[in-house]
Amino acid sequence: MRSLAFVNGKFSSLEEAKVSVEDRGFLFGDGIYDVIRVRNGRPYKLEKHLKRTFQCAKELEIPIPYSKDELLSIMTEIIRKSGIREAKLYLQITRGAYPRAHEFPQEVKPTFVLIVREYNGVDEVLIREGAKAITYPDIRWGRCDLKSLNLLPNVLARQKAVQMGAYEAIFHKGDGHITEGAITNVFIVKKGTVLTAPESREILSGVTRETVIKIAREKGIEVRERVFSLEELYNADEVFITGTTTDLLSVVEIDGKVIGKGKPGEISSSLYKALKEDQKNECNLQ
Amino acid sequence: MRSLAFVNGKFSSLEEAKVSVEDRGFLFGDGIYDVIRVRNGRPYKLEKHLKRTFQCAKELEIPIPYSKDELLSIMTEIIRKSGIREAKLYLQITRGAYPRAHEFPQEVKPTFVLIVREYNGVDEVLIREGAKAITYPDIRWGRCDLKSLNLLPNVLARQKAVQMGAYEAIFHKGDGHITEGAITNVFIVKKGTVLTAPESREILSGVTRETVIKIAREKGIEVRERVFSLEELYNADEVFITGTTTDLLSVVEIDGKVIGKGKPGEISSSLYKALKEDQKNECNLQ
Repeated sequence: MRSLAFVNGKFSSLEEAKVSVEDRGFLFGDGIYDVIRVRNGRPYKLEKHLKRTFQCAKELEIPIPYSKDELLSIMTEIIRKSGIREAKLYLQITRGAYPRAHEFPQEVKPTFVLIVREYNGVDEVLIREGAKAITYPDIRWGRCDLKSLNLLPNVLARQKAVQMGAYEAIFHKGDGHITEGAITNVFIVKKGTVLTAPESREILSGVTRETVIKIAREKGIEVRERVFSLEELYNADEVFITGTTTDLLSVVEIDGKVIGKGKPGEISSSLYKALKEDQKNECNLQ
Repeated sequence: MRSLAFVNGKFSSLEEAKVSVEDRGFLFGDGIYDVIRVRNGRPYKLEKHLKRTFQCAKELEIPIPYSKDELLSIMTEIIRKSGIREAKLYLQITRGAYPRAHEFPQEVKPTFVLIVREYNGVDEVLIREGAKAITYPDIRWGRCDLKSLNLLPNVLARQKAVQMGAYEAIFHKGDGHITEGAITNVFIVKKGTVLTAPESREILSGVTRETVIKIAREKGIEVRERVFSLEELYNADEVFITGTTTDLLSVVEIDGKVIGKGKPGEISSSLYKALKEDQKNECNLQ
């Protein structure tokens, strides 16, 4: 069982996996990425991830050098070769390597990278007791709907969170409205209704976000996609965050303020269970 | 005479110059860069470039693995080895290679890259006749004062400019004020006064910008650093842009509208000459 990379058609160890210093991913962040969860050797919600990847690539005019079927087969092979059953599968496509100039090169081959690494999910204690978060000014660019490699603000926000002993940094805009977390989407629960920011250029439309909204609605829970404020966040009955590596995690303290009863709430817990059930079903887990 | 790279202590051809796929520059744009002009084998305004690089690195908590003197000696060596006299020297420092997680790794060595390439300046026709520009919404992040690798909005803006047959894209904010260009700082001239956006988190404090302001003031030209609007840009007597690879370039058409008399203006031309004179003096050019 070992981490593996696949770079432009070649499988290798991660130590051997290299790209040009003139890769536009390295020089400009001119590329896209995705992270896919592998449970029991099977990629979870792969179709939805690939759909988004193809959409982002189209928007940025980065050609993906494989068809969806070819991608599926490469992904299956890297998981099989690695021998890893519980994993993160990281996908990155850049516009390719070319002498540095901002405009798109006329003739360039995109760089295609896959990395598979063992991953067993968020710490059990966090799941049981809930996580801490901080809030952080949302100074990101205007196209957060694109899963691009321009992630320095997210890096700085998450670093601050970790320094403060928190799991996540939740972004708020100048007027106080909440967008999303540095690596997750953010939900609040108030009087039985679940709220999360609507799809827009301010948030990444997370696959887990979409799954949780669907699951909640199937359970008869009202979900409203609307902008909410920092004040509503602090005063929510429950707060939870969702993401591919995070699954669904209750947030019980934000900026040192206790949220709701200070432990994972009823709706969050029931949605967490339902999400794990969905993973089990789709990935044939015991 | 050949392009050369220097990556983490090793000189090589550009073809051989590689970094890890897990380099945080490649994954997150978690790094900084600078471009230095080399004239007659000598780096122009090197002290100012290095000062800014050290400032940016400090702000982002990226350690620079060399002292200023060591940097100077490596730069001198790469220029000498390349045999190139007229060049762009590209410097990039990232937080280093580490398994992907947004927060700063505890133990990681920064990645240090230098690239030297021949460069002979902007096309003579553009200098003589002036350039076209377009305007483009400034959707960049909130820390444009940092010379970071999160350059996708600049890439998209410059690509649009090139598609439109223009040299540069000039950013305007939602309220219509101008910040800077995708790869340059922007100046306007009105009734003999030179205006440019003040230093703030909205612009990169360009070394050429600073040089041109100094030169203009020495010539007795009034320079005001203040916010100006898209309307003022369109109605300026002269517009010019400055940057390390651009030097000083007159802009004579923006969004299809003719600026001033539609040719390089008197003040722009005199500042261009003075800038070239300064390069000659500092770099011992004939």
